[in-house]
Parts: sequence; C-alpha cells; structure tokens
Amino acid sequence: MRICVLGGDGYCGWATALYLSRKGHDVAIVDNFLRRQWDHELGVQTLTPIQPLSDRLRVWQELTGNVIESYAGDVTDYDFLAQVIESFQPGAVVHFAEQRAAPYSMIDRKHAVFTQVNNVVGTLNLLFAIKELAPDCHIIKLGTMGEYGTPNIDIEEGYIKIEHNGRNDVLPFPKQPGSFYHLSKVHDSHNMMFACKIWGLRATDLNQGVVYGTVTDETNMHEALINRFDYDEIFGTVLNRFCIQAAVGHPLTVYGTGGQTRGFLDIRDTVRCIEIACHNPAAPGECRVFNQFTEQFSVVDLAHMVKTAAAEMGLPVEIEHLPTPRVEAEQHYYNAKHSKLVDLGLRPHFLSDSLLDSLMNIAMKYQDRVDRSLFLPQVNWRSSRNQRSRKAAAALSMSGD
Amino acid sequence: MRICVLGGDGYCGWATALYLSRKGHDVAIVDNFLRRQWDHELGVQTLTPIQPLSDRLRVWQELTGNVIESYAGDVTDYDFLAQVIESFQPGAVVHFAEQRAAPYSMIDRKHAVFTQVNNVVGTLNLLFAIKELAPDCHIIKLGTMGEYGTPNIDIEEGYIKIEHNGRNDVLPFPKQPGSFYHLSKVHDSHNMMFACKIWGLRATDLNQGVVYGTVTDETNMHEALINRFDYDEIFGTVLNRFCIQAAVGHPLTVYGTGGQTRGFLDIRDTVRCIEIACHNPAAPGECRVFNQFTEQFSVVDLAHMVKTAAAEMGLPVEIEHLPTPRVEAEQHYYNAKHSKLVDLGLRPHFLSDSLLDSLMNIAMKYQDRVDRSLFLPQVNWRSSRNQRSRKAAAALSMSGD
Repeated sequence: MRICVLGGDGYCGWATALYLSRKGHDVAIVDNFLRRQWDHELGVQTLTPIQPLSDRLRVWQELTGNVIESYAGDVTDYDFLAQVIESFQPGAVVHFAEQRAAPYSMIDRKHAVFTQVNNVVGTLNLLFAIKELAPDCHIIKLGTMGEYGTPNIDIEEGYIKIEHNGRNDVLPFPKQPGSFYHLSKVHDSHNMMFACKIWGLRATDLNQGVVYGTVTDETNMHEALINRFDYDEIFGTVLNRFCIQAAVGHPLTVYGTGGQTRGFLDIRDTVRCIEIACHNPAAPGECRVFNQFTEQFSVVDLAHMVKTAAAEMGLPVEIEHLPTPRVEAEQHYYNAKHSKLVDLGLRPHFLSDSLLDSLMNIAMKYQDRVDRSLFLPQVNWRSSRNQRSRKAAAALSMSGD
Repeated sequence: MRICVLGGDGYCGWATALYLSRKGHDVAIVDNFLRRQWDHELGVQTLTPIQPLSDRLRVWQELTGNVIESYAGDVTDYDFLAQVIESFQPGAVVHFAEQRAAPYSMIDRKHAVFTQVNNVVGTLNLLFAIKELAPDCHIIKLGTMGEYGTPNIDIEEGYIKIEHNGRNDVLPFPKQPGSFYHLSKVHDSHNMMFACKIWGLRATDLNQGVVYGTVTDETNMHEALINRFDYDEIFGTVLNRFCIQAAVGHPLTVYGTGGQTRGFLDIRDTVRCIEIACHNPAAPGECRVFNQFTEQFSVVDLAHMVKTAAAEMGLPVEIEHLPTPRVEAEQHYYNAKHSKLVDLGLRPHFLSDSLLDSLMNIAMKYQDRVDRSLFLPQVNWRSSRNQRSRKAAAALSMSGD
C-alpha cells in the first residue's frame, strides 16, 4: 500500500514509517521539522542523539534497500499538502503532524493559539486535500485518550448509546479535554466526523494513550535510526521520564497524589495499531474511533513499578510528590474500553520489568546528555503566562555547577 | 453596568447595544466591520439601507443623550482586544464578533479555515484577555442551537446526565454540528468550558436559535438607526428570507421537504436574553449554557404561515421545494429544552401574524433594493469548491433584464 506518514520525523511517526516500510509498504514521510525547532526554543534535547532525516533515510535504504520518500513542508500550507497528495497518490495517510504536548499549549496565549490553529488548520487541509484529490484514501488520524477527560462513567470507543427520557441515540462520546492541546484534538475529531458525513470520506480516529518505550525492531537496526527519547517536562511522557530519572538517581516526580489514571501503550504497539488500521480501512462516510492503548495505570503505580525495577538493577530511587501544575482530578474513576484494535488482531506488548530495564539501560548509556533541570514542571495550568524559557535558561546555567 | 458588545455593528449586536444603552448601561461597541466587507465580497446587501457606525452612534446620542463608545479593531488581534478590556474595564462582555453564516463557511476551504481560525482565535483571545485583565468580568458568548444537531433524544441546556453501565455523570451534551461554522462554535464552547475550569472565569454560553425580525423599539426611533435585514442565501435567515420573498412575489424557497425543525426567536427577545444574562452572572468557574430560543418550527410550517399571512395582505405566494444544498435530515425528532431564560424572567414575543405583516411591509417598502438572484442557494455542502461569486455575478447581470 502507498502510505503517507505526516509528521514522520517525530517520535511516533518515525517508528511508524520504518515499520510500514519494512512490512513492504511504499512510504512517504511529510514533515516540516518543527518538532526539532521546539527543542531549540525550549532549550531541551532528546536523550538519544537523533540524526537528520536525510541521514536516517539514507541509512535505512542502505540497510534494507527500501526507499522512503520525503517531502519537506508544512501541512498548514495547502498548496504544499495538495501537491504531496497529488503526486504520491496514497492509499492511506497517517496524520501525526500536530503539536502534541499539553504543557507546550499551556505556556501562554501564543502557544495555545499556535497549537489550536496549527492542528485544526492542518487537519482541515488534509480533509479538503483528500476530498479533492484522493477521495478513496483512508485517513488515519492520531487523536488522544485525553479527549475524553476522566468522566465518572465507562469511556467507550468514540460513541455512546444514550437513553434519555424514554428515547435513545448513539452519539459522539462527550469530551472533557484537559489542555488547549487536548482541546485541539477534540476540534479535529468533530471536524473529521463532519467531513466524513458530508463528503463520504473514510477515516479512523485513533485515540491514543500515553506512549512509552523508544526502541522498535527497525530503529534498533542501526545507531543512525535511533528514535527520540524525550524526558523534559514539556515533551517527555511520564513513564519515559521516570526511567531516565531512575537511571540518573533523580527522584521520580509524581504530580500530586499520582492517582491520575491513564491508558498506556508501548511504541511497538503504536506502529502495529497503525498497520492494523491501514489493513482494515473505514468504509466510505465512516469516521471510526479506536481507543489505542493496552493497559491502564495510575501515575503513582508506575512510579512504584519503576522504583522496584530500578532497585533490582541496584539503583536506589525516591518518589517525590510535587504539587500538580495541572488542573486535574488526582483521584477518579477510570475505565476505558479498548477492544476494537485487539479484535482486529493487536497482540499487546504489556509493560514488563524487561522493558523498564531496557529503558533505564538506554538512559544510563546516554546519561551524560541528561539535563536534570528539565525534569521539574515549570508550566502551571492556572497561570496564563508561564515564562518557561527564561526559567529554563536560569536552571541550565545552575546545572553547570 | 459597563458592557462591551463585541461585534456591535452586526445584526444582533447592533440591536443589543442600543437596547442595553437605553436601559442605562454604559456600552462600548467593538467591531472590525468585516460583516460589511462580506457584503461586498458576496455582492449582496442588506434590504435595509444601514448607516455607517459613526452616523448611527451620533444619531443615538442626539436622540437619547447616551454615548456609546466605539473601538474599531479585530478581536483576533490580541494587543487591540487587551487594550479595549484594559481601558473600558467592562463588567460584562457580550461576544457576537464571529463569522456566523453556515453557507459562508461551506463555500470552499479558505472560507472554512477562515471561519474556524477567526472564531476560535477571537474567543481564545477574549478568554486570555479576561483572565489577565478583568478576571471577574462575565463573558456572555453567543453559541448556536446548531451545535447540537438533531439527535434522536431531547436536547438539554448544555449538559446531560448520562447513566451508563450502572454509573452516572453529568457531561457536556454531545455535539453534532452541521457546518464548518457550527463546528467553530462547538470548538469555542469546549475552549470556554475549559478556561472557566482552570482560571475560574464566569461565562454564559447562549445557544441561540434562528433569529427573525429586524425592528426593536430602539432601532425604530430613527431611520438612521435601522438594523440589517439580510435575505441572501448566505446571511439571510430563513423566516426573514421568506417574508421578503413573499413581499416581492417570489416563491418561498424551502430546502427539501422542509421538515427540518429548529428553535426560533424574535430579535426583541435576543436583546432581552442578553440583558437577563448580564443581570444574572455566572458564578466564578461556571460555564453555564442557556438554550436561547422561544419556539420550535419546521421550515415548511414557517412557509405555510408566511403564505397564509401574505394571502391576507393580498399577496399570492407559492412554496417551492428545492433540493437541499445541505447535508441534513429532512425529517427528524426535535425537542430542545429552553426553560432557563424563562425562569430568569424572559417573556417571549411569540411569532404572530402581526410580526409577519410588519416584516412583509418593511420588505415592500424597500422592494426596489431586492436582488432576486440572491434567493437561490449556490453553496452546496457536498462540494468543497463552490464558485459562488462568479455565479452570483452572472445571475446579477441576468436580473437586469
């Protein structure tokens, strides 16, 4: 199949592009490299020394003989995106090309507006480009489990049958997103559902949980193919950050009580879920929603698992409870359904001690690259102006002691 | 009370600004005059010859002694908006300053993207400006009943108690908006709900039905205060358009069977609802939703009411069923709650023969200004490129016959 991976130079996108290429698909990566630019803006770096996309793709071709095409540009530029769709003629487009960090969207007004405009316009452009240039192409859009928030009822996969005053209907599941970023994904979901309805497009909205891990079979083939491994308070996801904190002897930073429960998945399952979606396209006019995660954990449970695994490796680790910088329930009911991808063949990689070992070993390998000042949250949801950059700069200079 | 009316030069905004001024409030109008610009873009005009804002305000001051301040600028320009909030220090802000026509948003990609970016960014800017500069100010935001779509269950006012698998919660009512414009209002609603939660802002989201009528006590005081009366397929709301069609002997243009049922209200109730919201502010942290309409009608019912009223005035009128240019259910269940504003004191002006007479009389008074080519729908929801402007130009030249 011809598959376009929008945002294919990022964390999930890179692993996905290689996986699909190895499986024999014709893959094109579309990226504007903004994710790399944000590292500079924020003064952070991935733990792992990632290579420029051109080097990555050259090594991939040398190792496998597979060519991954690349298009450098921005999906918010319609002329560019339309030219890509027209020339590549994909059978599926996987859309990772969004700003994906909640704290980034909460820095201040400009970051909130940027996140929403960037994500909403990119997705609108994609919907129009597919309608106009490749109407049978299957759109596989990355959403987030964070669209649902933490309601006091079971979370279904996208839609819920509601009985009310003696009547009933199946309606979009009510959304209570917890950041301007999560809101942008809710906006996308509504826009995409509508476009499928009026134009008969095919779409799968993957409400993904928190991804952990960094190694896949493909990125492991060569040092130049190594994937991002973010641990900073903005782009680092919680389990990855805990493993790096453990590896360098920093307390695990739990926000509040840590009772916040979320869905999680291994990045090796992310790539497999995308392939499953590609092989099982939505019907014309269908906007299908899959909850893409494999297990639920509370944050404090994860902290204890990392602490235990670290102890077995001889790494003593403390757990530190910080005031949560977010506005969120610290204790709540959480039961989210996630059977549709399993029904289509997903065999999950459940979280294991060996995976935690592996993450901590990678962290130890690159520990000279760790900047401890990046662990602590500096973006407060209750403030509308977080002067993060300056604080980070100050912290960085202190870390030179 | 000091009240800022964003979009105060438009159809609902102008009537509201005058009403609040006459009631003794200190009113400021903020407008960028884009609504007037869209008339030029589309080659349409309000039936009524409206005056420039500066003339309107001068006459208002001469008649009443009341000064309405005006600020010319765009709410998507944060520096401008912040300066307005800081200098005027409103106790309430009424936010009408959005692109509000579904067909306009469906013309093509650029109009869809414009509508969503304009509306979402304007509202985000307002939320940030209030948080930073006037955190106790009550935000009164115009939403639309079209956010809900036409679910097969009763529509509640913003939130619904859902029982599911033995548990329950009160959640945002699921939204199924029917155009890129209606989607923009859903995006706004989600953003505003979140901002109230994290920052403790006070907000009322008025999900308004279809407004009809043009005259209020205040706009009726002088010819220079006359309000807009739009009848074109883009900005004209259905009942206003029917009355003008009847007045000039054009068939009433019903889309499909006309079984589409919606909530309606008289513009004299719009202004009163805004005042009620001002006098009864939401609590800090509360994002309250009122469904702002007074009666439900199907489109074909309205057509028959206009036909009957016209016949009594000696105007023979036909009803013409056109294929609907929209993607919408032509027959559906519809029962939307709307008791909260009545509980707070709204005494509705129900639709009456005398109102229809009055609208048709105004239409006859200005019938030389009617361009019949503007009655017919030219924006098709199923197309992503409606070349409306050129078609309208062609139709205009033909209407010169």
